[in-house]
Amino acid sequence: MIIVADNLRITLPSIQRAVEEMDPDPICGMVEDCVKAGAHSIDINSGPLSKGAEEKMTFLVNTVQSVCDLPLVLDTTNPDAMAAGLSTCRNRAIMNGVSLEKHKLEKMLPLAVEHKVDVIAYLLNADSHVPADAAGRMEVAVALFDLLQQAGIPSDRIIIDPVVAPLVWQDGNRQNMDVMEVIRTLPDLLGEKVKTIAGLSNLTSGAPDAEKRHRYQAAFLPMLAAAGLDIVLMNAMDPAIMRLAATCGTLVEESIFSWV
Amino acid sequence: MIIVADNLRITLPSIQRAVEEMDPDPICGMVEDCVKAGAHSIDINSGPLSKGAEEKMTFLVNTVQSVCDLPLVLDTTNPDAMAAGLSTCRNRAIMNGVSLEKHKLEKMLPLAVEHKVDVIAYLLNADSHVPADAAGRMEVAVALFDLLQQAGIPSDRIIIDPVVAPLVWQDGNRQNMDVMEVIRTLPDLLGEKVKTIAGLSNLTSGAPDAEKRHRYQAAFLPMLAAAGLDIVLMNAMDPAIMRLAATCGTLVEESIFSWV
Repeated sequence: MIIVADNLRITLPSIQRAVEEMDPDPICGMVEDCVKAGAHSIDINSGPLSKGAEEKMTFLVNTVQSVCDLPLVLDTTNPDAMAAGLSTCRNRAIMNGVSLEKHKLEKMLPLAVEHKVDVIAYLLNADSHVPADAAGRMEVAVALFDLLQQAGIPSDRIIIDPVVAPLVWQDGNRQNMDVMEVIRTLPDLLGEKVKTIAGLSNLTSGAPDAEKRHRYQAAFLPMLAAAGLDIVLMNAMDPAIMRLAATCGTLVEESIFSWV
Repeated sequence: MIIVADNLRITLPSIQRAVEEMDPDPICGMVEDCVKAGAHSIDINSGPLSKGAEEKMTFLVNTVQSVCDLPLVLDTTNPDAMAAGLSTCRNRAIMNGVSLEKHKLEKMLPLAVEHKVDVIAYLLNADSHVPADAAGRMEVAVALFDLLQQAGIPSDRIIIDPVVAPLVWQDGNRQNMDVMEVIRTLPDLLGEKVKTIAGLSNLTSGAPDAEKRHRYQAAFLPMLAAAGLDIVLMNAMDPAIMRLAATCGTLVEESIFSWV
């Protein structure tokens, strides 16, 4: 399983301040820690970046790629920031992301085509809501997969995100069973192996403490791995979860087993 | 998920000595610990009991039911010991188990019919080998399920054990993917919901240390839970695994979620 660190996010006060002051040090420190922890990729979660979006995303991407050559996931809903980030990125870039929402298809998708990058496709309805059941998620997956290919994104650059539901949602646990079914079923449904990604931290949004956050994530991650998940977006600074991800890999990948 | 403690086993020197000396105390202590830890059932793993089999199994069952009223899983390959245990057991009893092996069908199955107990059915070929792939396991499941019902065991008293493979087996990890597929597919295959059980400790037979044993079990248990496993036979004295089993239950069962 490929691990994308979700640690670099503008909602952290230290990162927000660093971006405001164009101070690379806290960002570099965070990225270096994630790399040391074993992350395979870094998600740059800049948020919408309402003011000075292009300059800030350019600064973020340049800062991150000054200390690591891992693939970078550009995670912003702001098309101007995305365009600036993609233009700046020398590392392999992944756009996070598009969906059936009109503004994503109009503003984001053309950027993915233009920059020939991998693109994360969220299984949301056009009205921005999560589909009601597994069948709904699959319909959206088929529609989005076709649409992206027609737009010029080859299938091996599409990464499906079935959208992990926070447990605190009314039917969050049932929805997450759908999420696993979708991951398992996608290759048959789409007629080819297509990469999948899931945001593990979503599961525990609103968790009252770190122990519960860790415990529920540790129970859910192996379930996702067994369903066939390729890429997990998660906290790379939780050593127990990082070890668990590696252990899950040993269980689900067809490699020669040895006790590691 | 229902938890059957696998802690009471004659391979433990303290338990072996207790059985030899007909000393109930170490057995009672072990069972009370498992009950306190939250086990829902106790597996009495007496081994084949070559000498004084009936007397020893009678002693074991009486000792265990003197301190708990949980369902007891009688786990011996010796038909005389099984017969004595089933005759003695006042608690709900589960026979562990039968398979397509000739001696099991001839000697064990009639006891399950006679005593009207639940019976664990192992997915082994008649030659005692594990089927080569998921399709093989499913063929055996269908054959065994039909055979047990024809013999007079109603379907709701059949518990399928797809046989967890030790990781150290040459293709253990691949086989365990088959195990999960079988658990997931059985209801469709058999045309009704049938209970399943898996022995978690099997996975880590031969693990070099407790950390590895715990870590691999902790990664595999949620995978089994997500596949729909009903009953897990496991170490009830590992508090972290017990907490994990409860957390998995919260994720996969359709209950109202709350942070526990």
